[in-house]
Amino acid sequence: MLIVKKFGGTSVADKERIFNVAKRCIEDYKAGNSVVVVLSAMGKQTDVLLEMARDINPKASKRELDMLLTTGEQTSVALMAMAMNSLGVPAISLNSFQARMKTTSVYGNSKLRKIDTERIKTELENNKIVIVTGFQGVNAVGDYTTLGRGGSDTTAVALAAALHADACEIYTDVDGVYTADPRMVKTARKIDEITYEEMLDLASLGAGVLHNRSVELAKKYGVKLVVRSSLNYNEGTVVKEETKNMEKLMVSGVAVDRNVARIAVVGLKDEPGVAFKLFNHLARYDINVDVILQSIGRDGTKDISFTVALDDADEAVAIVERHREGSLKCQKVDVEKNIAKLSIVGAGMMSHPGVAAAMFECLYDEQVNIKMIATSEIRVTVIINDKDVERAINAVHDKFALGQGE
Amino acid sequence: MLIVKKFGGTSVADKERIFNVAKRCIEDYKAGNSVVVVLSAMGKQTDVLLEMARDINPKASKRELDMLLTTGEQTSVALMAMAMNSLGVPAISLNSFQARMKTTSVYGNSKLRKIDTERIKTELENNKIVIVTGFQGVNAVGDYTTLGRGGSDTTAVALAAALHADACEIYTDVDGVYTADPRMVKTARKIDEITYEEMLDLASLGAGVLHNRSVELAKKYGVKLVVRSSLNYNEGTVVKEETKNMEKLMVSGVAVDRNVARIAVVGLKDEPGVAFKLFNHLARYDINVDVILQSIGRDGTKDISFTVALDDADEAVAIVERHREGSLKCQKVDVEKNIAKLSIVGAGMMSHPGVAAAMFECLYDEQVNIKMIATSEIRVTVIINDKDVERAINAVHDKFALGQGE
Repeated sequence: MLIVKKFGGTSVADKERIFNVAKRCIEDYKAGNSVVVVLSAMGKQTDVLLEMARDINPKASKRELDMLLTTGEQTSVALMAMAMNSLGVPAISLNSFQARMKTTSVYGNSKLRKIDTERIKTELENNKIVIVTGFQGVNAVGDYTTLGRGGSDTTAVALAAALHADACEIYTDVDGVYTADPRMVKTARKIDEITYEEMLDLASLGAGVLHNRSVELAKKYGVKLVVRSSLNYNEGTVVKEETKNMEKLMVSGVAVDRNVARIAVVGLKDEPGVAFKLFNHLARYDINVDVILQSIGRDGTKDISFTVALDDADEAVAIVERHREGSLKCQKVDVEKNIAKLSIVGAGMMSHPGVAAAMFECLYDEQVNIKMIATSEIRVTVIINDKDVERAINAVHDKFALGQGE
Repeated sequence: MLIVKKFGGTSVADKERIFNVAKRCIEDYKAGNSVVVVLSAMGKQTDVLLEMARDINPKASKRELDMLLTTGEQTSVALMAMAMNSLGVPAISLNSFQARMKTTSVYGNSKLRKIDTERIKTELENNKIVIVTGFQGVNAVGDYTTLGRGGSDTTAVALAAALHADACEIYTDVDGVYTADPRMVKTARKIDEITYEEMLDLASLGAGVLHNRSVELAKKYGVKLVVRSSLNYNEGTVVKEETKNMEKLMVSGVAVDRNVARIAVVGLKDEPGVAFKLFNHLARYDINVDVILQSIGRDGTKDISFTVALDDADEAVAIVERHREGSLKCQKVDVEKNIAKLSIVGAGMMSHPGVAAAMFECLYDEQVNIKMIATSEIRVTVIINDKDVERAINAVHDKFALGQGE
């Protein structure tokens, strides 16, 4: 078997943890597998480097930031190779020039375009464990780029796809994907299997175990993902195309995202193109809009509400304000920050009508006020007050009996 | 003018010094020059990385050590580019994959083979200051290598040669090359101009301002070197092919090397091939032998004494001991560690007989015992007791009136 194993910064934060990871990889190697390891920078190293950069130049170019940040993973992979060697196992570290991870040209948030796996394959044939820097790549002009949030997961999945690996294991500090955040819901249960689509919805809705891009890539190339803990040998969660219990469960998980703000643009003229103009302004400043709700206002006007990430809220308001008297011609802009997004996700929903209604009923029973609603084929999302979140997630989790096993 | 400027780790050890270097380079840039900057790792960063490696694996492979160490210079160059950018000047950092510094295959002590300057030239044409990682390169299999001690100087000289630069300035924490170590000799004077040969002898004899390899390379490609301080604007020392005062001065400097031990192999059979066998054994373990002296011993035997670096002394003795009853057949091996090497260097010696005699006389007047003597066309070296060093260097410095200007 060819296995790609990815470990995050926490898993390689110090000598002891580096050796734990080394031993874990060596077990697979000694069992006769080919092993490729993808690592992030050690512990808080990326933050330390960013702080150094900010101290020198608060407006450092992304090109130079990437040049600086990529030293983080190179340090991890070199130390890991040394650790494996000291345990008597041949291992070699490769950065993204050596592993030939080609990306798009943009710095700071690049995308992998192509991996030329020749060197990796040669080293695997030489019976070595190959340790590759995650999160980074090289663009067409030969500069380092970084892949943005969750980048090392993406590196691991892309490598698994390019190498036709039998599995891609993403190691984290939790046992896998849960039916809800175990810190908030005591009865939350680990999910054994989940589809790419469900995982995508959970990830984008704030479950936060895997980054969207890595799941999308895994889906595209059919890479079997395993999310598991680096602290124990529990089985973890398998993410794949179809799961055997797909028909049984209506809802596979409840996700919460508290990093959210709602902006209400009130009293827009009720004429064609208003929504386009509004969201076009925001898109030009790279502001991602999530849930959108449009309603009829008074006197032939309409109101549009939408959610953005909390960090983007002030900028979004400022952008709308700038165009309030110009292209938008709206009466006022409101922002509400103490809100949260609660979602239920499940491929089973498609064939089980009434799931959304059951969720609303359950929230009504708990006297949780719903501010916005958005649904897709396999999820229902509501925006509620942040203070209601814990009550709401537990009520919904109970309602769909998510704690009771499959 | 195209100027290559090299700054060592001390010059970029913290934010303040990074900005000092940035400003210094920008002055040349704003005066209309093309500027290429070569940097070492910040301050003690290389030692910090080596300590991390030792902690993980005391016998870490050189290949992985190089992978780790090269992050040091990459950090420096990225931060320097950020500093220059924050001062409003376009600058770009390049590592040795990007600046295409090709080396021999060996790790830890590689040699530059070829520099493909295309990328550097493009960036210079784009009116940027180009900041390149010193000390590192990439070998034919695409691995990072490091150039060993003084490696960043070598990088700077090689770049100056490849780019046909008008000058290569090596910045250090002293004003230039001195007639003797100013910490030992109060009257020591900065030398304005010196030939490559003299500089080579001074470097190899322990003056320690420039590494031999960088001077050899400068000589080979006729690169004009300037050694000067990063702390002030003094003129520094120019190292070049011929100096205008070549005929005037017999002796240009006095160098001391205290990192030396003498090994005496006593009672070797007086037959052909004995010296060859002895030094061949040592060469096989990469032990560099410096001064060699052979004398007739008692009863048809001969004695061979030689000096090695202090760190190599114990290993050298062990090697000789291993072959004492075998191929060498000597009576005993002695080692003496409290010794030092004192040398006078000067291209003028060639045409001034009696320089060596004057040196010996001066040491006799000071009652300094000479243990070994070695001479070349432009230098005289003596091995003396370490305790006599300060007295001896001052006496010799006075004798040749080195403190009195040109």
